[in-house]
Amino acid sequence: MNDCIFCQIIAKEIPSTPVYEDADVYAFLDITPVHPGHTLVVPKVHGATLLDVSADVLAKMIQAVQRVAHAMKRGLAIDGFNVTQNNGTVAGQSVDHMHMHIIPRYPNDGLPAWPHKTYASFQEADAWAQKIRAQLQEA
Amino acid sequence: MNDCIFCQIIAKEIPSTPVYEDADVYAFLDITPVHPGHTLVVPKVHGATLLDVSADVLAKMIQAVQRVAHAMKRGLAIDGFNVTQNNGTVAGQSVDHMHMHIIPRYPNDGLPAWPHKTYASFQEADAWAQKIRAQLQEA
Repeated sequence: MNDCIFCQIIAKEIPSTPVYEDADVYAFLDITPVHPGHTLVVPKVHGATLLDVSADVLAKMIQAVQRVAHAMKRGLAIDGFNVTQNNGTVAGQSVDHMHMHIIPRYPNDGLPAWPHKTYASFQEADAWAQKIRAQLQEA
Repeated sequence: MNDCIFCQIIAKEIPSTPVYEDADVYAFLDITPVHPGHTLVVPKVHGATLLDVSADVLAKMIQAVQRVAHAMKRGLAIDGFNVTQNNGTVAGQSVDHMHMHIIPRYPNDGLPAWPHKTYASFQEADAWAQKIRAQLQEA
C-alpha cells in the first residue's frame, strides 16, 4: 500500500517517533496527541480496520498495547489511560490502516465522556442483541 | 470477587443481555448504551484493568471483539464502530473489572472527538517517547 501513510511510517520512508517494535507490530507517537505520550500501535501488515486484521496479529497488537501501557504508566506516572480504536470515517478513523490509540489521562483534564442512553425494557435490549447474535458466525 | 458487578453478571447472579460467550470471555449489552447494541466484552477471570489481565486472555478478548464487531456491522447495518477501553477512574472507568466497549456509530451522531495538541519539535516528542521506552521491560 504505497499510498498508506502508516505503511510508509512502518517502512521508515516517513519519520516517526518510535515507542516499541516487534516482528508484527510497530508503536509510535501520534503527532497530534490528546496528551503528550499518546501512542499508536499498528500492525505491520496493512489492514484497513479491526475487521481486516488477522486474529493472530490482533492478539499481538493487544499484547503490545499492554506492554506499552505498563511502560507508559510507569514512565509518565499516570493514574489511568484509555485504549481506543476507530473503524470507519463515521467513527472518526482518519488513516485507513488499523491502529489502536493509547492515551494517558490526568485528573480533571476535561476530556468529555460520550452521553449514554437507556433501553425502555429488557425486551427492547434483547431485540437489539438478537440483531447481533443472529450474525455471529463460527470462528 | 463477590462484590464485583461484572463477576456477578458472568456468574448469572445478575441478569444481562447476552451477545457472545466462550470459555474465556463474555459479551453482553451495556445497559446505558451510547447507541443501542453497544456491547461490553469482559474476561471471565477478574482483572481490574488491562494491566491485570493475562496476555492469553487479552488475545481471546480482542478476538471476541472482532467476532462481535463483524456481527454488529452486519446485524445493525452500520458503517463504523469504536472499540474503547478505559483504565482507572481518571480515564472514566466505572466498573473495576476490565472491559472493552464496542460502540456502533452513525453519520452525524454528534459524539465529540477529543481535542488534539501538537509537539513543538521532534526533539520534544522524542523526550516523551523516551520516558515510555525507558520503562519497557522484556516480555
